[in-house]
Amino acid sequence: MLITNIKTLFGVREETKFLRGKEMASLPAIDNAFLQVEEEEIIRYGSMDQLDLSEFSDQENIDAAGQFVLPAWCDSHTHLVFAGSRESEFVDKIKGLSYAEIAQKGGGILNSAALLRDTDEEDLFQQSWRRLEAVRAMGTGAIEIKSGYGLSVEAELKMLRVVKRLKETSPLHIKATFLGAHAYPMEYKDDPQAYVDLVCNEMLPKVAEEDLVSYVDVFFEKGFFDAKATKQVMDAAQKYGLKGKLHANQLSNSGGVQFGVENGLLSVDHLETMGEEEIKALLGSETIPTLLPSAAFFLRMAYPPAREMIDAGLGVALATDYNPGSSPSGNIPLLIALSCIQMKMTPEEAINAVTINGAHAMEVQEELGSITVGKKANLIFTKPMNSLAYLPYSFGENLIDKVMVKGQF
Amino acid sequence: MLITNIKTLFGVREETKFLRGKEMASLPAIDNAFLQVEEEEIIRYGSMDQLDLSEFSDQENIDAAGQFVLPAWCDSHTHLVFAGSRESEFVDKIKGLSYAEIAQKGGGILNSAALLRDTDEEDLFQQSWRRLEAVRAMGTGAIEIKSGYGLSVEAELKMLRVVKRLKETSPLHIKATFLGAHAYPMEYKDDPQAYVDLVCNEMLPKVAEEDLVSYVDVFFEKGFFDAKATKQVMDAAQKYGLKGKLHANQLSNSGGVQFGVENGLLSVDHLETMGEEEIKALLGSETIPTLLPSAAFFLRMAYPPAREMIDAGLGVALATDYNPGSSPSGNIPLLIALSCIQMKMTPEEAINAVTINGAHAMEVQEELGSITVGKKANLIFTKPMNSLAYLPYSFGENLIDKVMVKGQF
Repeated sequence: MLITNIKTLFGVREETKFLRGKEMASLPAIDNAFLQVEEEEIIRYGSMDQLDLSEFSDQENIDAAGQFVLPAWCDSHTHLVFAGSRESEFVDKIKGLSYAEIAQKGGGILNSAALLRDTDEEDLFQQSWRRLEAVRAMGTGAIEIKSGYGLSVEAELKMLRVVKRLKETSPLHIKATFLGAHAYPMEYKDDPQAYVDLVCNEMLPKVAEEDLVSYVDVFFEKGFFDAKATKQVMDAAQKYGLKGKLHANQLSNSGGVQFGVENGLLSVDHLETMGEEEIKALLGSETIPTLLPSAAFFLRMAYPPAREMIDAGLGVALATDYNPGSSPSGNIPLLIALSCIQMKMTPEEAINAVTINGAHAMEVQEELGSITVGKKANLIFTKPMNSLAYLPYSFGENLIDKVMVKGQF
Repeated sequence: MLITNIKTLFGVREETKFLRGKEMASLPAIDNAFLQVEEEEIIRYGSMDQLDLSEFSDQENIDAAGQFVLPAWCDSHTHLVFAGSRESEFVDKIKGLSYAEIAQKGGGILNSAALLRDTDEEDLFQQSWRRLEAVRAMGTGAIEIKSGYGLSVEAELKMLRVVKRLKETSPLHIKATFLGAHAYPMEYKDDPQAYVDLVCNEMLPKVAEEDLVSYVDVFFEKGFFDAKATKQVMDAAQKYGLKGKLHANQLSNSGGVQFGVENGLLSVDHLETMGEEEIKALLGSETIPTLLPSAAFFLRMAYPPAREMIDAGLGVALATDYNPGSSPSGNIPLLIALSCIQMKMTPEEAINAVTINGAHAMEVQEELGSITVGKKANLIFTKPMNSLAYLPYSFGENLIDKVMVKGQF
């Protein structure tokens, strides 16, 4: 398949390294470009001037005149598999209840857990499938999905089997993460250690045995999982060869970043509450700071200090945090707009953060996240616009025309 | 035409009065409803239980099973007619330039004015038409559009003739506003009074002669138009029987609200910078405070104090401020989400503010803004959702299925 007359082909890279600091400002591009796809892969690209069209007369041709083409988004932090929705809590929040108060009412994560336990696997799959198809239409070509609304052996396995079925059914690249340590279920309120033991000694072995996940995540936060509990879970994960990710520094500056760096985790995610020490800890480490500004927006919290982090030399990834409580949106174009408008990231930085850097944060950088020969043909075709900055600028408009995943629309 | 099986019909009102304070929390509704349309008008509605379907066998039937139906939005403050886009300034802002610095660079409103002068009337119409069709698809059924990127007799008339042509071509209810006093053109920098005189003595008479507008607006702000200049424009407007609207208290608390109230203007719009005095001034007046939070979002400014205003007993309207500099979005569902998430308005308050109260802010309340017998059939059909709160909650999702304007899809 030959895609011709691309107005500008963005994200062209020979190397697939993680971008840090000033490197994030650059999004290499070719104007008036072509791109050739064979089966699922990008096999060639370049300027239209270098193309002898007569050599390709047998190829299916897609005319992309007036369109930009970008690598599809890699959304490295979501909770896309959930049951129902939580807009009644949203209204409670508007009326002034805090995150903690809602949690105390048995709401928050435990509300989703109750909904999930009452939803059968088929229904949960259908709900999740609709969300997956919706985010694909907005340009997402790879997505990480966490468990964590099960909070029992059976329900966590149900969630992860749904993720597995999504993986088998969808052409999207899906990575699964076990987040049993998302919240303490009510019945363990007086004995939280017993729940941590359950996560480590019962859930994790079963999850590993069925080969359901790539990562293990913990909600490291005051009132949720502390350093000791997190360490126990991460040590158990290591026994099964599973890398760690962490929900860190969302509600308080409680040492999550430092824990992530010291324990060599793949990523520390959220980072609404950061100080200089946290930025220092991340510099020189391989742990990827992943920012989730949709959650800050939805919770009316301060945004992660993206500008300070990049200016200090850090590379960041952006992800949606798609979940029913704190970020009921998997819309990456809107996330990019939010990141540029509210966190002062440039359009190029934001796009790098949800393509190549997002790919690193879910370890798919050898296959996805840039326009590179040999990578999967996961491509976004935009509607006509004059410049890439128009994408975050025109923040309420759907500018995605069509999305190719593994060479197919 | 008979619309049947509506899951819930929202915004049902016998009276069309402006809603204030606690009244804003109520959005009267009928579950399992029908609605009958004849020609352009709503002629009957009620519960499906009261309906004898056999009486309507000759009618076109639209089955709205699973759908909510709402009155279409009334967007009472926009600058939808403009030329091109200003994303390069957006990037300048990200890089730290202030609104004032951009204005000093000859950017801001003057940038749009330069673009507009170089765009012929047909091209300007086509660009504006595309925007109008896009906002209609998002549920807008009535819209106010301002001039103000012309800043010369000829260019202001060009803009307003485009608005007139939009009015003639589109079924949307369109109200035009003359905003010659939007900014001082460069050539009047040393003699601003001469520009105010031009607005009053040359532009306004021609605009009135061609019967192009319903309202006159002024950008009342430090460094833009002061009380004296504004008074001169509003006095001139009154001679032609034109009511006033005002851009007030956006960048500073500079007396705009008080000016609006004292001069009996229809509305004072923006209101990012408000104190107790301003709220007091509005209480008991007929001047409508219109909030434009999309602009606050896009400019990273504090939001208007919607919660305090409603709690003090005021009624508010919400509008998009759709314009290329400070609010490049005409997306009202996203505006509603922004208002609920960031300004803590309840979903019902936000919807009232863009329907019945928005209708008042552009004086179309006798024809639009609620489900009322005799009003135009301007209706929004939503995608299936469990509750109305899902609309702002699921803030990145397009939940509008289809939009009827004057009885037509």
